[in-house]
Amino acid sequence: MKLINKGICAVTGVKAYGIKEGKYGLAIIEGSGNAVGVFTKNKFIAAPLIVTQKHLESSNNKLNAIIINSGNANAFTGEQGFKDAENMAILLADKLKVKKESIGVASTGVIGRTLNMDWIKNNIDRVFNNLTNSSNGCESAARAIMTTDTKLKKIAIELENGVRIGGIAKGAGMIEPNMATMLAFIYTDANLQPNQLKKLLISAVDKSFNMTVVDGDTSTNDMVLLTATCKKGKVDSVASAEFQNGLDYVCIELAKMIASDGEGATKLIEAKVIGALSEDDAKKAAKAIVCSPLVKTAIFGEDPNWGRVIAAVGYSDAKVDENKISLSFSNKNTEIALVQNGKVLNVEKESNALLKEIMASKEIDIIVDIGIGSSSANAYGCDLTYDYVKINAKYTT
Amino acid sequence: MKLINKGICAVTGVKAYGIKEGKYGLAIIEGSGNAVGVFTKNKFIAAPLIVTQKHLESSNNKLNAIIINSGNANAFTGEQGFKDAENMAILLADKLKVKKESIGVASTGVIGRTLNMDWIKNNIDRVFNNLTNSSNGCESAARAIMTTDTKLKKIAIELENGVRIGGIAKGAGMIEPNMATMLAFIYTDANLQPNQLKKLLISAVDKSFNMTVVDGDTSTNDMVLLTATCKKGKVDSVASAEFQNGLDYVCIELAKMIASDGEGATKLIEAKVIGALSEDDAKKAAKAIVCSPLVKTAIFGEDPNWGRVIAAVGYSDAKVDENKISLSFSNKNTEIALVQNGKVLNVEKESNALLKEIMASKEIDIIVDIGIGSSSANAYGCDLTYDYVKINAKYTT
Repeated sequence: MKLINKGICAVTGVKAYGIKEGKYGLAIIEGSGNAVGVFTKNKFIAAPLIVTQKHLESSNNKLNAIIINSGNANAFTGEQGFKDAENMAILLADKLKVKKESIGVASTGVIGRTLNMDWIKNNIDRVFNNLTNSSNGCESAARAIMTTDTKLKKIAIELENGVRIGGIAKGAGMIEPNMATMLAFIYTDANLQPNQLKKLLISAVDKSFNMTVVDGDTSTNDMVLLTATCKKGKVDSVASAEFQNGLDYVCIELAKMIASDGEGATKLIEAKVIGALSEDDAKKAAKAIVCSPLVKTAIFGEDPNWGRVIAAVGYSDAKVDENKISLSFSNKNTEIALVQNGKVLNVEKESNALLKEIMASKEIDIIVDIGIGSSSANAYGCDLTYDYVKINAKYTT
Repeated sequence: MKLINKGICAVTGVKAYGIKEGKYGLAIIEGSGNAVGVFTKNKFIAAPLIVTQKHLESSNNKLNAIIINSGNANAFTGEQGFKDAENMAILLADKLKVKKESIGVASTGVIGRTLNMDWIKNNIDRVFNNLTNSSNGCESAARAIMTTDTKLKKIAIELENGVRIGGIAKGAGMIEPNMATMLAFIYTDANLQPNQLKKLLISAVDKSFNMTVVDGDTSTNDMVLLTATCKKGKVDSVASAEFQNGLDYVCIELAKMIASDGEGATKLIEAKVIGALSEDDAKKAAKAIVCSPLVKTAIFGEDPNWGRVIAAVGYSDAKVDENKISLSFSNKNTEIALVQNGKVLNVEKESNALLKEIMASKEIDIIVDIGIGSSSANAYGCDLTYDYVKINAKYTT
């Protein structure tokens, strides 16, 4: 597996383009193939998600293209919302001369306001006429779907067997374990059927986007779509494991980009829990750590307040033993133990240059060995900062 | 029922005193009677809680006094922690010439550091010798147990039948539905047996402290102790309902004091959910609203971003119907509807002086009518501000 350029446009058959004007953005991705999706668990599901789910059903999981707007979530917008989402699909279907059921629709932004369809109608040609498989295609699309994101999020890899997987994503706030205003569009040229794709995608999402927390709010608009253009040969069972690894990698890297670009974030936190009794326990403990506002503010303050990590693991529902748990902080270069088998090592009391160096890092790992089993899980989060408050105190105004 | 002065010292037989020196505080409450407690659900339970639970068991739920320190939680401190908590009880028991099993112990502060027992030994006389049933007794004790609290928290009421209930509390951070570093000590002169007290307390805590959220972290040290000095006549079944009402009121008022004094808070948020299918659903929805960082930052910014409230209710696990839900904001004077039976009223788009006035209030009610049932619940929380981040970024240093 190697990293390659051009994001989704690295996958043969995929073109993209996007524009951004102030708070509004519009992007189109053209790429025909077998497609599956994973959608928000929020009970108020935004109109574009319901439309996309229906389209996937009626088209037997075939998509020709996806149209995405940013600045308005088209969520909680009643009948008008469904009409608007459907009309977005029709606008693009007419240009591509395909059925509207082969179009996916996604939205992100403010909840409860009807879409400015005139703006979309007036600008769709500018996007459609510029669709390209160049690097700029992927980048302009990734930029167009950003809201409070500060960095565009794209990645592409090539597996040993030549299969490629590329993805773009957006998301910075309303990010929670159960997928938040998080959009990700992933393409591969592998020849995979919808039922295979679905299994592969769910497994990858469980390890990546579902383990990513910015603020613990679950959006009404979360969506991950995976489309296989099938330009490469069939994926056999051996290659399938390699493909899963590759897809996991793409999803985890996009998830880490989302976490480290969390609203106001200055640091990426990776909680690595090992030694848990079950995978479920490991996941609960890892998520509790990256969810805790007290852990997140301590990391922002570069304060090695490990007691808050212990407290988070303690209320996480994971089985624990006070005399078995170990905890360390690490960065890319070094690791320092603070608790070992329940014993407090008091390393943070002394003037500890190594610990200070770790706490000052941009990427900090919190490693917890629960010490009573053999299951593990990683979760991805960010620090909680003044800027998170600033960004969210005045979002709609 | 009427409000009276002197907090816990309004209850006959109760004396208190406390001192605060920098980060450290020490308080004693003397008051003999039947006593019950409710304790943290965190799996790492701090030593003083385990000691107090054991003492309540061995004394058949009789307490003579409680000793409380602030500045150090005596949590995750191993064997030494248990010895120290036990020794705090012994120090006070010796002075009162009672069994150590009749002493409750509580601690709040930093996790993972052993207590400074010398400081406690050196200062216990100063506290003990000043025990008083005057107003200052209650106030100095309430002040001594504060950590990041900015206001002392006390209340007392007298029921129609002359029974009194008084309480003090502390808590500002690590506050979550399942009780956080939240300590509350409640006294009554009613003649109630431990099994009655326990039932009454659990019911009151479920409606008050367990519905209070500052940051969603559950502390290792939460404790509510209720002691009945039994100086008044027996409480019969009719009076018992009145007593429950009174105890509910005391606990809810203390909980609201905790929420409005949440770390960095500038506003008290009361989420009132009605029309839910079940009480459990109403509680889940109400808690989700006051837990949501996005709702909390919007309230700080005085931004009527009701879409975030809808999103929180949607991910709360409560059953909902997009066409039935109604939502309004209110303050003490006025109420304004933003969503009615799923229809967005768009009142926040215009320059709405009334809505601005509500959003600028210090106490804001968010009223959600789910519209599909008849169950209701209230939850208490606060806004998320720059100062929350500031306070928690550098707590241990």
